[in-house]
Amino acid sequence: MNPWLQPEPHDWWPVVEDALFEDVGSGDVTSSLFDPFASVSFYIEAQAEGVVCGVGIAHAILGASAEDPPEWFSEPLVNDGDTIRRGDRIVQGVLSTRRVLTGERTALNFLMFLSGVSTLTRQYVERIDGTKARLVDTRKTIPGLRTLQKYAVRCGGGFNHRMGLYDGVMIKDNHIRAAGSITGAVLRMRDIASHLSRIEVECENLDQVEEAVKAGAEVVLLDNMDPFMMREAVKRFGGRTVFEASGGISLETVRGVAQTGVDYISVGALTHSAVALPFHLELE
Amino acid sequence: MNPWLQPEPHDWWPVVEDALFEDVGSGDVTSSLFDPFASVSFYIEAQAEGVVCGVGIAHAILGASAEDPPEWFSEPLVNDGDTIRRGDRIVQGVLSTRRVLTGERTALNFLMFLSGVSTLTRQYVERIDGTKARLVDTRKTIPGLRTLQKYAVRCGGGFNHRMGLYDGVMIKDNHIRAAGSITGAVLRMRDIASHLSRIEVECENLDQVEEAVKAGAEVVLLDNMDPFMMREAVKRFGGRTVFEASGGISLETVRGVAQTGVDYISVGALTHSAVALPFHLELE
Amino acid sequence: MNPWLQPEPHDWWPVVEDALFEDVGSGDVTSSLFDPFASVSFYIEAQAEGVVCGVGIAHAILGASAEDPPEWFSEPLVNDGDTIRRGDRIVQGVLSTRRVLTGERTALNFLMFLSGVSTLTRQYVERIDGTKARLVDTRKTIPGLRTLQKYAVRCGGGFNHRMGLYDGVMIKDNHIRAAGSITGAVLRMRDIASHLSRIEVECENLDQVEEAVKAGAEVVLLDNMDPFMMREAVKRFGGRTVFEASGGISLETVRGVAQTGVDYISVGALTHSAVALPFHLELE
Amino acid sequence: MNPWLQPEPHDWWPVVEDALFEDVGSGDVTSSLFDPFASVSFYIEAQAEGVVCGVGIAHAILGASAEDPPEWFSEPLVNDGDTIRRGDRIVQGVLSTRRVLTGERTALNFLMFLSGVSTLTRQYVERIDGTKARLVDTRKTIPGLRTLQKYAVRCGGGFNHRMGLYDGVMIKDNHIRAAGSITGAVLRMRDIASHLSRIEVECENLDQVEEAVKAGAEVVLLDNMDPFMMREAVKRFGGRTVFEASGGISLETVRGVAQTGVDYISVGALTHSAVALPFHLELE
Amino acid sequence: MNPWLQPEPHDWWPVVEDALFEDVGSGDVTSSLFDPFASVSFYIEAQAEGVVCGVGIAHAILGASAEDPPEWFSEPLVNDGDTIRRGDRIVQGVLSTRRVLTGERTALNFLMFLSGVSTLTRQYVERIDGTKARLVDTRKTIPGLRTLQKYAVRCGGGFNHRMGLYDGVMIKDNHIRAAGSITGAVLRMRDIASHLSRIEVECENLDQVEEAVKAGAEVVLLDNMDPFMMREAVKRFGGRTVFEASGGISLETVRGVAQTGVDYISVGALTHSAVALPFHLELE
Amino acid sequence: MNPWLQPEPHDWWPVVEDALFEDVGSGDVTSSLFDPFASVSFYIEAQAEGVVCGVGIAHAILGASAEDPPEWFSEPLVNDGDTIRRGDRIVQGVLSTRRVLTGERTALNFLMFLSGVSTLTRQYVERIDGTKARLVDTRKTIPGLRTLQKYAVRCGGGFNHRMGLYDGVMIKDNHIRAAGSITGAVLRMRDIASHLSRIEVECENLDQVEEAVKAGAEVVLLDNMDPFMMREAVKRFGGRTVFEASGGISLETVRGVAQTGVDYISVGALTHSAVALPFHLELE
Repeated sequence: MNPWLQPEPHDWWPVVEDALFEDVGSGDVTSSLFDPFASVSFYIEAQAEGVVCGVGIAHAILGASAEDPPEWFSEPLVNDGDTIRRGDRIVQGVLSTRRVLTGERTALNFLMFLSGVSTLTRQYVERIDGTKARLVDTRKTIPGLRTLQKYAVRCGGGFNHRMGLYDGVMIKDNHIRAAGSITGAVLRMRDIASHLSRIEVECENLDQVEEAVKAGAEVVLLDNMDPFMMREAVKRFGGRTVFEASGGISLETVRGVAQTGVDYISVGALTHSAVALPFHLELE
Repeated sequence: MNPWLQPEPHDWWPVVEDALFEDVGSGDVTSSLFDPFASVSFYIEAQAEGVVCGVGIAHAILGASAEDPPEWFSEPLVNDGDTIRRGDRIVQGVLSTRRVLTGERTALNFLMFLSGVSTLTRQYVERIDGTKARLVDTRKTIPGLRTLQKYAVRCGGGFNHRMGLYDGVMIKDNHIRAAGSITGAVLRMRDIASHLSRIEVECENLDQVEEAVKAGAEVVLLDNMDPFMMREAVKRFGGRTVFEASGGISLETVRGVAQTGVDYISVGALTHSAVALPFHLELE
Repeated sequence: MNPWLQPEPHDWWPVVEDALFEDVGSGDVTSSLFDPFASVSFYIEAQAEGVVCGVGIAHAILGASAEDPPEWFSEPLVNDGDTIRRGDRIVQGVLSTRRVLTGERTALNFLMFLSGVSTLTRQYVERIDGTKARLVDTRKTIPGLRTLQKYAVRCGGGFNHRMGLYDGVMIKDNHIRAAGSITGAVLRMRDIASHLSRIEVECENLDQVEEAVKAGAEVVLLDNMDPFMMREAVKRFGGRTVFEASGGISLETVRGVAQTGVDYISVGALTHSAVALPFHLELE
Repeated sequence: MNPWLQPEPHDWWPVVEDALFEDVGSGDVTSSLFDPFASVSFYIEAQAEGVVCGVGIAHAILGASAEDPPEWFSEPLVNDGDTIRRGDRIVQGVLSTRRVLTGERTALNFLMFLSGVSTLTRQYVERIDGTKARLVDTRKTIPGLRTLQKYAVRCGGGFNHRMGLYDGVMIKDNHIRAAGSITGAVLRMRDIASHLSRIEVECENLDQVEEAVKAGAEVVLLDNMDPFMMREAVKRFGGRTVFEASGGISLETVRGVAQTGVDYISVGALTHSAVALPFHLELE
Repeated sequence: MNPWLQPEPHDWWPVVEDALFEDVGSGDVTSSLFDPFASVSFYIEAQAEGVVCGVGIAHAILGASAEDPPEWFSEPLVNDGDTIRRGDRIVQGVLSTRRVLTGERTALNFLMFLSGVSTLTRQYVERIDGTKARLVDTRKTIPGLRTLQKYAVRCGGGFNHRMGLYDGVMIKDNHIRAAGSITGAVLRMRDIASHLSRIEVECENLDQVEEAVKAGAEVVLLDNMDPFMMREAVKRFGGRTVFEASGGISLETVRGVAQTGVDYISVGALTHSAVALPFHLELE
Repeated sequence: MNPWLQPEPHDWWPVVEDALFEDVGSGDVTSSLFDPFASVSFYIEAQAEGVVCGVGIAHAILGASAEDPPEWFSEPLVNDGDTIRRGDRIVQGVLSTRRVLTGERTALNFLMFLSGVSTLTRQYVERIDGTKARLVDTRKTIPGLRTLQKYAVRCGGGFNHRMGLYDGVMIKDNHIRAAGSITGAVLRMRDIASHLSRIEVECENLDQVEEAVKAGAEVVLLDNMDPFMMREAVKRFGGRTVFEASGGISLETVRGVAQTGVDYISVGALTHSAVALPFHLELE
């Protein structure tokens, strides 16, 4: 498995606990139907084709623990990042009936949500296959789930932009407007920022790109430019900076953007508008 | 304003704090460009038509506080649940430059996410206009955001199903399978559940509906039935129970379902597959 | 064991941790007397007759863990809900002297408190034996301990009313006064509440009962009525609604209330005025 | 007001928040009946005579805040520690209907619980009036509520023993048994304990008292002794140590104990077995 | 091992978790270099002579867990409180490369910080060897680390003063000024304080010492007195109270202070101005 | 004021709350001496010369709040980063006697600790005055206090290195050893790291520097080199990378290092071995 894919468990456990509490609260009234010691054989099944993500989370929610009877077990059957088809089993086991039915919805909600992100990412990545461009995500994420969504982007074959405002410097249009000029903002920022940070500047036209490069911007974001302008920017300033294209790039347009020679393409839709990939849990 | 729409602030503040921390972490390096006492005039603008939700949250993130200088201010310009058009202003103000630029993304992420849910809900609600059916949500929500998503459904004109496993009894297919029979499950559940709870049973065919009604189910979920079967169920058992239709109901099929005479239609896509409604923040 | 009795461990562990911290704080000065590796043989003993509750908690506080030496052990000797007599042993073991003496008071405090509730509940339940009435608790609980107290009520043979304001609809006198009328309140509530909720209305006389039943109240609370009026309510409206009696019902009066034919009797004293059942911990 | 009575607000606010969450959870369904901007005139009234405690908490839960409309208000009408009679008003105001009805039960639960402790304490204190003995509490408290219960004891006229295991040294029977001897335990403890701590030893007979005094015990607990033995202990060792009487002391026997000349009398029942003092909230 | 040395793990684990989060945050970017299943042989080595403290913490951060492969292991090689020399190994093991490199800095930061305190304490303790005086710490600690620093003081051979404002009574100069007189403060305090607390009074001259002793102060702090005055205080009032010397006592002056006959010497520098003892982590 | 100096309040308030709880716990027994409504005039005074840091924290702990009587007030008298002399007043006010005496130690502990860091930083900064080198801190910080210590470094005139493992890539000796080679590690890291991150490599000799520069390291750390070797590195590779000197650099040697032409000098002692700057609080 690609080591880069796997986040440490401590990354997501609190989020999972919150989600479980959100659903279970003071207790699952309906699961009280069952003897707490009764067990059941179950599996989670994909209901559509895509890239799976969240297998470890689903297994952590439903999986066996050290206190369980020896005849109980559970196992993940695929890895995050795998391509799956309708009918593929994701997790299966024999476990406490109560626990399975109480955790079912939360486990499926994570799987559906994260696999939706991975699947959409994979579609973009396939479109730019063969170009030098890399697909990256943005900070347009669902509140509280950024770490997991960025992990799902990696599982789909994409790369991560900065995690937040704290681990990267990006001078955007509003910063430039408030600071007065690109040059002023870059110089001031260079003075303030850690010597381990590169500085990225968002540019809307070639004059801005030129000013940014001359001021020392190590990365330039080409914002909402058409492919002709992007190509021109790469032609004029390639080698002196790194180029990232951004702004309303769709599955239809992404290949054209990649062919301009930019280094990175960032797509907000990966994390703000992916639709869920369907899964369900069945008893045997 | 419809009093039912507004959740109490304590409902969402911790979620907002988490989202801010997720983005800002140890500090917004780029906003250090600005004097902490400098201010800026800004507004948030809709970039598409839809139903807005999250105005109060966006305003809480970006809004003025009691310690601010008297010349600073901020105001929401629309209410949650309002229909908005491209170019409408949502929030505007004059505030700390640093605070506006640091909070921008988190405020927009909430607005985009929640307005996406409200807008999709409104589309469904409009399709069933004139029928007796009510649109309701499900537990297929994004982890950690259920309270807010269910609020967004209300803003879009929908109604809420139970909040979680703790505040409603629903005997689903897996419960029936594990319990042995519908009748057994209903009687056992009636014995266990609070006398303030109704009991809902998920049924896949008319025999199950008959068994559920006879066992005393006060609500029957018609799961993945075609409209003919639904109509038959309503015809046979209407008045003796409440009917909820569910299962893969789309904008194309929802009106046909509503016309069968069911009381409620639940749609998971409202909360698991709404795409974001776009907004941006501009400085003046 | 009755499956309904056992709450999941995650329900009470944080409450136990708070209680331990409250008692131990920055450290048990006196237990520093002992070598941290020394062990001792101990047992917890009942000092009065009653219904035990909190055995699992006491055992979790004092019990052996996986890191302990193999010769250490501990075991619960009774189950929650068992009738115990003076001198019965509840938990026994051989464990770290420090840990036993540091945890002793917290373990006993839980046992004494919860067994007090179970014991009082059992006394009420025995008084209504042979009638159709069920004994239920109320929301008049000790702050922070509601889940555990409601569990103790179940251990004593009682049943639980709603857990809180979130999982049941009850229109009380103050709601009726503020809403204007019973009929108005019930209709409005039916429009707002989930279709999985029944609606209960608190009534003080037969006219109110009649109005509530006609408005569609599925449960009627007979508040502070004398048994004659209760019997009359049951006679007139029995079968059209469910009846709950409430208001100052004591061990002396509860049987008379039960004989009126009501379905449920709720008693606040179970959770706000139970006296502790005494236990102590002894070393051998 | 006696300054010693008032705990700082930070002491109890988290406990109140937990209690509110426990009751309100995902929202008070029934209070959704009312317009969020509607207000109501209300008061809390005592339903029995006793010593009130928890007025500040009840007022904090129900009281007006800085964001409220200017015509809303609330005020406490008595102070913690006051003797009240049936019908006395405790808190009154004009506030949000929703907030009053949602907070009502939690506010009353605190008042009833804490006033129960204060009232029982006052009864004990009155019985030993005129003697030199002081009434003190124990660590036999309700889990999670020790700080508040110890405050309620002060409001009733009692005094506080140590708060927990961390702020006082008490060598009890189990410590002596595990340490081998009183003398050994006292000397070892003196070596370990802070020079700001006194050492208390629990004794069951006069020989133990003698050993404890000789070993340097600054406080001696006379455990379950009859008044004759207590009087003898005071006679023999008075002036050389401080005496605390403990063990099953009731309202009937407390005066006799006080007359033996002991300095302190500790009573666990104050905090583990006080019954609630009744209050209710009325709308006008 | 001296049982008094070892704090319970629950004392420090949350502090360690905070420190790890502070360093690792959203993830250790550089350690992503390595396969998550790769392992490495490592050891921590002292780079100077001193008294080690924090071995258990370092081992908990870097150590093997139950889920690790059987060929992985780790072990502490010294105990807290041991004297170590340059080149001594402290902890060694074979473990996940990622985990070792990610935890390295946090583990070393604790070791360096705590061993600095233990080493400085030992230096003071050695200077007063042979006198009756005990070295104690103060409340002048690094915010958030008091429990650990006071443990490090014990490891260095010192003793602990009170943990905080909650577990000991000390009437300092500012209290006396605000209360009006030593006598008034002591009598009022005796009335308020638990009967398990001694009362300490800070005095600046012999008249104050006399007043404090007569008022009943069980401990007297001789604040910033010269050794002659201390000796005089001990001579006049020795046996009637316990003496603690304090105020700017250095390694150079501490022996002279100890020879005056005081019982305790408190030194703030132990916890506010110890320099780090250096350690590093090496791979093999 | 330099805007870069001031961290947002939310950065440190939780740390302050923890420190207050650590000191105050279940309550300041001694301050109970005073009427909760009594007030006192106080000031904090420097007892030595240095650079002050923590004024805002000390003022937040001791300062007036909106609920205080109008005649109470408090004010900071200097700014963080100011040079102060013995006897300078830092904060003064008239406030609750209890609050002042309870908060005194915590406020002083922060001031002493942080001003110690700022003062030591200033001493280093002054030594390299006139050179192009910048002084930066390291990750060798006191657990839990990194954000504040790094702020104190800025107040003293230094600059900050990365905040933690999450916001900067540094390939250290142990990474190189585990990865096999500098070149391999840099290339792999470049593939993994965000395009907003520079890559720093720790080198011990000129061959390593050459390999790092050729592999594309944007920053090179010269670890424990003597000034001659540093000068040679700058001479050979200056302009192709950024140089940071590190390793046992003292006040005595720092100027010599700065004169080699390196860009940054990092000093761990700033945060792991600064001694406290003394302050006290006086009443008037």
